[in-house]
Amino acid sequence: MDAEDRSPDWWGRRAWSLLSAVRARAPLVQCITNLVSMDIAANALLAAGASPAMVHSLREVPDFTPRCDAVYVNVGTLSEDWLPSMRAAASAGRPWVLDPVAAAASGFRMEACLSLLELRPAVVRGNGSEILALADRSAAASSSFKGADSSHDSLDAIEAAKALALTSGAVVAVSGAVDFVTDGKQVVGASNGVPMMQKITATGCAVTALIAAFVAVEPSDALAVAACALAIFGLAGEIGMESAKGPASLRMHLIDALYNLDEQTVTSRVNISMRS
Amino acid sequence: MDAEDRSPDWWGRRAWSLLSAVRARAPLVQCITNLVSMDIAANALLAAGASPAMVHSLREVPDFTPRCDAVYVNVGTLSEDWLPSMRAAASAGRPWVLDPVAAAASGFRMEACLSLLELRPAVVRGNGSEILALADRSAAASSSFKGADSSHDSLDAIEAAKALALTSGAVVAVSGAVDFVTDGKQVVGASNGVPMMQKITATGCAVTALIAAFVAVEPSDALAVAACALAIFGLAGEIGMESAKGPASLRMHLIDALYNLDEQTVTSRVNISMRS
Amino acid sequence: MDAEDRSPDWWGRRAWSLLSAVRARAPLVQCITNLVSMDIAANALLAAGASPAMVHSLREVPDFTPRCDAVYVNVGTLSEDWLPSMRAAASAGRPWVLDPVAAAASGFRMEACLSLLELRPAVVRGNGSEILALADRSAAASSSFKGADSSHDSLDAIEAAKALALTSGAVVAVSGAVDFVTDGKQVVGASNGVPMMQKITATGCAVTALIAAFVAVEPSDALAVAACALAIFGLAGEIGMESAKGPASLRMHLIDALYNLDEQTVTSRVNISMRS
Repeated sequence: MDAEDRSPDWWGRRAWSLLSAVRARAPLVQCITNLVSMDIAANALLAAGASPAMVHSLREVPDFTPRCDAVYVNVGTLSEDWLPSMRAAASAGRPWVLDPVAAAASGFRMEACLSLLELRPAVVRGNGSEILALADRSAAASSSFKGADSSHDSLDAIEAAKALALTSGAVVAVSGAVDFVTDGKQVVGASNGVPMMQKITATGCAVTALIAAFVAVEPSDALAVAACALAIFGLAGEIGMESAKGPASLRMHLIDALYNLDEQTVTSRVNISMRS
Repeated sequence: MDAEDRSPDWWGRRAWSLLSAVRARAPLVQCITNLVSMDIAANALLAAGASPAMVHSLREVPDFTPRCDAVYVNVGTLSEDWLPSMRAAASAGRPWVLDPVAAAASGFRMEACLSLLELRPAVVRGNGSEILALADRSAAASSSFKGADSSHDSLDAIEAAKALALTSGAVVAVSGAVDFVTDGKQVVGASNGVPMMQKITATGCAVTALIAAFVAVEPSDALAVAACALAIFGLAGEIGMESAKGPASLRMHLIDALYNLDEQTVTSRVNISMRS
Repeated sequence: MDAEDRSPDWWGRRAWSLLSAVRARAPLVQCITNLVSMDIAANALLAAGASPAMVHSLREVPDFTPRCDAVYVNVGTLSEDWLPSMRAAASAGRPWVLDPVAAAASGFRMEACLSLLELRPAVVRGNGSEILALADRSAAASSSFKGADSSHDSLDAIEAAKALALTSGAVVAVSGAVDFVTDGKQVVGASNGVPMMQKITATGCAVTALIAAFVAVEPSDALAVAACALAIFGLAGEIGMESAKGPASLRMHLIDALYNLDEQTVTSRVNISMRS
């Protein structure tokens, strides 16, 4: 079915089907991710039904990565000694997903991200500022640079995301008030989530890990998969927000909600639609 | 007293006595542990009354490790640069405990675990798959390999655990629905805990850290010490489960429960018995 | 205004003014901090309104650090490969803050701390044992050494803190039942907080990160800034304690409380006074 024919109901069923597949198959996801995100990324993967494996030594990639169902690479606390492992794991023939955290933080980081992009990730997910910087291949120029936080609305990065998708061959997801996902032609919008999620460190990293788990069970439709993972995580945030009193309790309730999601909730509340 | 004479009541009193000793003496436990587990392991140690010290530089081992009461080594995010520190700390003459996370993940990791085993840990704690792989000295062969998660019941690994205990000289603990602990001859079963603890990342790492704290205050009876630490942590999970709505709230309530455990609760609810 | 003229009311208004400035300006704080503290430090900074950036590669310092509003260096899990990044970031011309965790753990760590002190931090915050060891320039001598936990009351370290402030040129803060802050002449006492905060790992690290965020918005009055940050964090702990059932729930409620602090609460409950 062509993406244009996908109704909101179709998306709800698709999201539930993917989450159910993750729960049933418990895909093994190798994560080479930043030091801040390890706890929340591993717990989000476990809550969704996947099996996280934080393995980053270059010595282990040849034995370990081929047995994984997907690979997740995140440059948030990039260092020279981890980059070769990231490149090796991304080259091991498994579907993989890239989170270019603060891509514009330095020339070193931008070059690392661009070199990783050449290794054909299935999905790249970033915020507006990260996607704009990657599409522009430029580090550190903007006076509005704000580290890992975005200084751009996701809407402002749609054209950059399309261009990046076409040049890289990856599906590109831009997080924001609305999350946009594009393969360069079609654009899907996912509108779940609450603003306070940005006040929890590494929620972006955690949702990219979730995208990797979803890609693991359905590598052939990365556009739909990424949109569904973003919506599922955002929905868990919405449900968590009903009980939260601040960002720390939201974090707890979000993970609990992700674990407890049922078919009725997912099919009725996932909010995805085609944008173009 | 021979272990065969130990009644359930004896175990409850023993567990309380050990926890009380940890609270009273606040043993300093050096942890060279994986990056995912640092937060929960440190918080579990603090909640139990111990003093955690995450110190991993080879430069610090000669000065620091001799002043510690126990050492905890965990290979979950093993890398070449950390292995010499692990070996040095394990060789410093302090009682130490090994967590061979995902021992079969790679040849590199299996060799590291086997070389650490030669340094005579007081206790090795793993899940069924990890203990089976270690006893078999084989990495990455099994098609059922699932990263850090076990694909074997703890019961299936009892004979392997006994054999490993005899060859290594360590007490071997196998976590599962029932936790088994053996010195190669006797087998003790600890039946506290709830299944959802497996949906929290690094609970296995945290309980091995707790074993190290218990070993610190009673290094002469590692069999009883390991069983009691496993039961105490599992009991905290049971109490936490009474208030939990999912794995993230379980994590919080478990740590709170560990902090609040009292004599009546420990002596009446710790569930340990001799199995052979 | 001279510090002697500062009334309790003045401090309440000052603390609120600083917190409001952090919320309004969202200062970018580069954190080169220990592996245990990353999650809680990042979440504390986000809850206070700052923008944390855990960036530790030496390759990124030249591009990244000059664009930050402050730098936070913490030696809790010091290693040889991170020390050059710490030194480079501390030398980049931004106001910076040092947390000398367990300074006496080893000769290597003590030398690292002393060499960092020469790079003129705006503020150094430690517990009593850490400040005493730094002032004495001696590692590992004391038989009372307890890792990252203090074996000295903050009161016992006031004279050492004054001496250290005079020799280093930094404002020195000593955490304890009462937190003391001194520039070598004046001493300010901040009395917010609850004892159970010491049962949460890395609360000291998190409050030093908060001091860095406060220094970012007001680099010219480090004495007041450090006292206010300590009081604000302690106040969040007091409010969190009203709902806490143990250290894990206290951690959650503390971060939520930090996020929700309002003018009335801050101005009426911040408890700071001049001591000499």
